[in-house]
Amino acid sequence: MSRVYNFSAGPAVLPEEVLEEAAAEMLDYRGSGMSVMEMSHRSKVYLEIIENAEADLRELIGIPENYTVLFLQGGASQQFAAVPMNLMKNRVADYIITGSWAKKAFKEAKLFGDARAIATSEDATFSYIPDCSDLPISQDADYVYICENNTIYGTKFHELPNTKGKLLVADVSSCFLSEPTDITRYGVMYGGAQKNIGPAGVVINIVRSDLIGDEVLPGTPTMLKWKTHADAGSMYNTPPSFGIYICGKVFKWLKAQGGLEAMAARNAQKAALLYSYLDRSELFKGTVRVPDRSLMNVCFVTGDADLDAQFVAKAKAAGLENLKGHRSVGGMRASIYNAMPLAGVERLLEVMEDFERAQ
Amino acid sequence: MSRVYNFSAGPAVLPEEVLEEAAAEMLDYRGSGMSVMEMSHRSKVYLEIIENAEADLRELIGIPENYTVLFLQGGASQQFAAVPMNLMKNRVADYIITGSWAKKAFKEAKLFGDARAIATSEDATFSYIPDCSDLPISQDADYVYICENNTIYGTKFHELPNTKGKLLVADVSSCFLSEPTDITRYGVMYGGAQKNIGPAGVVINIVRSDLIGDEVLPGTPTMLKWKTHADAGSMYNTPPSFGIYICGKVFKWLKAQGGLEAMAARNAQKAALLYSYLDRSELFKGTVRVPDRSLMNVCFVTGDADLDAQFVAKAKAAGLENLKGHRSVGGMRASIYNAMPLAGVERLLEVMEDFERAQ
Repeated sequence: MSRVYNFSAGPAVLPEEVLEEAAAEMLDYRGSGMSVMEMSHRSKVYLEIIENAEADLRELIGIPENYTVLFLQGGASQQFAAVPMNLMKNRVADYIITGSWAKKAFKEAKLFGDARAIATSEDATFSYIPDCSDLPISQDADYVYICENNTIYGTKFHELPNTKGKLLVADVSSCFLSEPTDITRYGVMYGGAQKNIGPAGVVINIVRSDLIGDEVLPGTPTMLKWKTHADAGSMYNTPPSFGIYICGKVFKWLKAQGGLEAMAARNAQKAALLYSYLDRSELFKGTVRVPDRSLMNVCFVTGDADLDAQFVAKAKAAGLENLKGHRSVGGMRASIYNAMPLAGVERLLEVMEDFERAQ
Repeated sequence: MSRVYNFSAGPAVLPEEVLEEAAAEMLDYRGSGMSVMEMSHRSKVYLEIIENAEADLRELIGIPENYTVLFLQGGASQQFAAVPMNLMKNRVADYIITGSWAKKAFKEAKLFGDARAIATSEDATFSYIPDCSDLPISQDADYVYICENNTIYGTKFHELPNTKGKLLVADVSSCFLSEPTDITRYGVMYGGAQKNIGPAGVVINIVRSDLIGDEVLPGTPTMLKWKTHADAGSMYNTPPSFGIYICGKVFKWLKAQGGLEAMAARNAQKAALLYSYLDRSELFKGTVRVPDRSLMNVCFVTGDADLDAQFVAKAKAAGLENLKGHRSVGGMRASIYNAMPLAGVERLLEVMEDFERAQ
């Protein structure tokens, strides 16, 4: 067995310890005589798994009692519909468009009401976060929506927008659990697990409990109504039980690493290695405005598509996988989520330096 | 490691070979240097996994080219909404109510149109399948809906209803791939994977391609529109990639077992062992009308709740897990899906015989 350094934007690298445990428990989870995949989700042994996962997540973030944690399916893309279906009482919502995912969420919301784009950075290929200190928030907006970390473009809201008292809804898929966060500043925070938390097929939704109710838009499918899942402890129907089990292991791993403070420090250190090199390199350039740089997705280019392709190939040969940037930005993207070890980033840096020297 | 015989109704037993392979590949899938959980779903190595899964499923069932296979999320419960949203052009559909799941699907369809219950077996705790040879099918029905195998009650449609030319839509979650099937008799056949195919969190939907279109009910979320997923080869957003990988392994296992003909013979043999004993036992009685018995879920009672509980405890002590029946039927339920070995059923039979002798 030989592991590569996997810079995939998602699904993405998971802690090796988590995978080792999952492999060891695959045929017999702790004396149960079965795999977690084979367990009734209503069994005592599985209930303990999902309850521990929620408890550990609550501890990691510091989620207060008036917030509900939901383990759901369908990816963030499904929440793009669920958000308006559950929250659009006035049928008005304000969207800040900082990339493809925010734009998709915005388009989906338009199916259900008057979604308004109140700021965008599309004019410069989403390479920055707009000034959100004094936006024209709609007076009757049910919420203000952001995608907090933009996986494709490598930007991050390092300050939350001033919503002027309106609810904040954030898709945090690609920065989930990468640093401490004050959940009380959000009405809803949700994200797909497949970047920083676990396998694809699990969405975690943290909702202020008073926002969960029976009053949803007419024609809301039962499965898209948050109350359905809140009332049933995420067990209205069979949850993605194996995925939640892996998420739970990642939560335990994060606690063992020292929690979100420790992860933030480690993530800052890893990102600084790459960004400081990008700032001094003659060959590689970061694509994002400096104050808006993501600590999770580091986008860079040489300015020459052929050279970019050569670099990606050279990196691949050195055991660094999935460095090709998204087609809408080009160049390279190094996704350095929680589970990417410092050694992987150091190795990438070496390969970049070698490549630059050889030019 | 000591494996039990797991009679869970779902999530349920998987082939041991599949679990062994998954464990062995957990840290490094065939030299890729990563787990399938960590792979970009757009990578060549993952595309091969999902494409092979679909090809093997097509081969197993014999799915013709004019049917589309979709790998989706949200369980059958989400398809309860997707079915009317995608198919209710006239806003009329006929439902045959043979258990809790059919009833839930029916209730969900009522959110979207005029769903009509044209037959039911609720009068006798769903212990039989109604005569469906000459039902009052609605002239303008967009489809006729059944739940083909009723997990909770242990019944199965051994003959499909006469839909009088209307489309048949079937939830086959608990009999998926348990026997050969003529897919051309269905407009839509779908099921959750977590009973006969793989882990929870994957739904497989086989749809006649001409039924997949842009014309859906207003307010249909993009993720519930089948065309979204058909156009993108089930890759509109990140699919439940690890779950699909396990399903793919189960398909290969089924092929190695001799395909659906061989599985049907094996399933018939396993079920016959239990049913023939139930028919001669003085203590245990089957709860289902004989011609409607499921080959997957075998429900039985002693008629005495205390004795039932004693039996379940005794079986558990003998390494036979999850035999307690659903609360709406009581007694016992042995789910004997494809992956339950004959030896497990033989062991159950011994324990039943011992228990009866001891009374």
